[in-house]
Amino acid sequence: MAKRMFVGIDLGGTNLRAAVVDSDARIVAQARAETRAQEGPDAVLKRLASVAREAVRAAGLELRDIAACGVGSPGPLDASTGVVLYTANMPGWANVPVAKWMTEELGVTTFLENDANSAGWGEFWRGAGRGSSEMAIYTLGTGVGGCVIVGGRLHRGRDQMAGHVGHTILFPDGRPCGCGARGCLEQYCSATAVARAAREATQRGEETGLSHLAPEQITARAVYEAAKAGSAFCKRLLAETGRLLGIGITTLVNVLDPQVVVIYGGMVAAGDMILEPCRKAVRELALRPASERVRIVPAELGEDAGVLGAAGLAWRRLEGEKA
Amino acid sequence: MAKRMFVGIDLGGTNLRAAVVDSDARIVAQARAETRAQEGPDAVLKRLASVAREAVRAAGLELRDIAACGVGSPGPLDASTGVVLYTANMPGWANVPVAKWMTEELGVTTFLENDANSAGWGEFWRGAGRGSSEMAIYTLGTGVGGCVIVGGRLHRGRDQMAGHVGHTILFPDGRPCGCGARGCLEQYCSATAVARAAREATQRGEETGLSHLAPEQITARAVYEAAKAGSAFCKRLLAETGRLLGIGITTLVNVLDPQVVVIYGGMVAAGDMILEPCRKAVRELALRPASERVRIVPAELGEDAGVLGAAGLAWRRLEGEKA
Repeated sequence: MAKRMFVGIDLGGTNLRAAVVDSDARIVAQARAETRAQEGPDAVLKRLASVAREAVRAAGLELRDIAACGVGSPGPLDASTGVVLYTANMPGWANVPVAKWMTEELGVTTFLENDANSAGWGEFWRGAGRGSSEMAIYTLGTGVGGCVIVGGRLHRGRDQMAGHVGHTILFPDGRPCGCGARGCLEQYCSATAVARAAREATQRGEETGLSHLAPEQITARAVYEAAKAGSAFCKRLLAETGRLLGIGITTLVNVLDPQVVVIYGGMVAAGDMILEPCRKAVRELALRPASERVRIVPAELGEDAGVLGAAGLAWRRLEGEKA
Repeated sequence: MAKRMFVGIDLGGTNLRAAVVDSDARIVAQARAETRAQEGPDAVLKRLASVAREAVRAAGLELRDIAACGVGSPGPLDASTGVVLYTANMPGWANVPVAKWMTEELGVTTFLENDANSAGWGEFWRGAGRGSSEMAIYTLGTGVGGCVIVGGRLHRGRDQMAGHVGHTILFPDGRPCGCGARGCLEQYCSATAVARAAREATQRGEETGLSHLAPEQITARAVYEAAKAGSAFCKRLLAETGRLLGIGITTLVNVLDPQVVVIYGGMVAAGDMILEPCRKAVRELALRPASERVRIVPAELGEDAGVLGAAGLAWRRLEGEKA
């Protein structure tokens, strides 16, 4: 049987990416553009269609060769109706019917997904989670997103609200979180949280190895670079971040017993400086034998995960899996 | 089509119960015996077979009318091989092949399940979770057990270790738990934890309304009775127990977004004294709209849940669902 072809699009606040992906999870061709979100949803939708067309052309195909298109977008959004409800990063986005618009514009059935699900599915389909049937992914970025895959299926939950692993409560009386609760994992393990902790310590005059940087230059990456260069403070901060991530993952392992937990996002650059303390916490704290058998691994696909997953989920939904 | 008939058995440390259950989840007949675990596994296995036979007789049936038998047992156990590895409450139980023994003894295909899964499936099939497809259950007893149902299926996880909601970490530096971690939900929300907190406060001389009782008489039930009789301490203790349970459920709701969370076990007698603070915490802390839509409800079946669920899971497994 001939391979089926899909388009996966990763709609980010800064960049748009489209890829033609075949049914073996291979990226055949791709195209990119700047999102230029400030121009509003109509302009962005047109650019979405345009990068999709460009990727299809680059693959030597025509739109009628494409079985389905998937768009991964920041949310909140309603995957079942294909509408972006609003997004924090893109002004003027309110109830934008992305799937319907793209379906009509391209003549290709288009499905909408949140970006965390797309990236998670990409890693599950072809990346660090391939071959498993039970997986969770933690995306350590501005916040901490994620998704859970149960029995080989993306678990959406009743209100498409499942997978918010960043809102695992670690400290009931801890740092206030944007969600209204306190002590959520994302207040301790996101790139934002790591940068903030380093910035505050530097401003307090602690020896962080970051005092040559302006406050806004103190990012999670700068913390990682300083740790590599020998900063004891930054090493401790990354280790503590990993330990707290491991405590959150312990709860997840005790409840879901997955085969693999994938760590995704910019913070993965810090590698074992975060992952080893994380694995140690899970080995020590989670119930056996799951604690010993669960693999905690960095994502493998980088930014390809989003386009691959968006294409793969579009394929699943074309086949009848409900959003 | 004629109704199919199953036997469900609830093997407890103190009592054995068997029920004949039809494919409409109705209990047709039942029988009981004391477990007398001190007599060792062989004697208990014979009693298991004997209560099963008695229930079948009471239903006016013969063993050949029974499609399958399910045994819910304390664990740890291996549901796929049907072997109880050991149990804390029953001396001498080590690698007891319950399913194989019963299958040969009765001539009825028998499946083994852990008791938390059995009770959870009972409530899902016929009790407080009926009609849902995503459910979690928290059994507040000596410890806190539970299970999770995802997409209408019991979620077992890779090592059959899923559903340990009692080992949600609430306080990373909190009370030591038997599992090796600290601050697990079961250290705050089990009947044991509630009784211990009341006992300790009474011994410290606080006004608990329980000072007329001997320490061993201060049980979770006594706390509930004292709260009903007006003890401000006991009311506060139950409210705090409910709030902490709600914090654990918040994490679960954020990760799994279930339709319903069922609270099971002796502590359910305290009803809204625990459930209202629990619901309030989830409404305030979990992500919307899941926080507003998830139902947190007491179990409905009492001790029938175990036999019903054991029968129902045996049916599922007979039809090919893997353990």
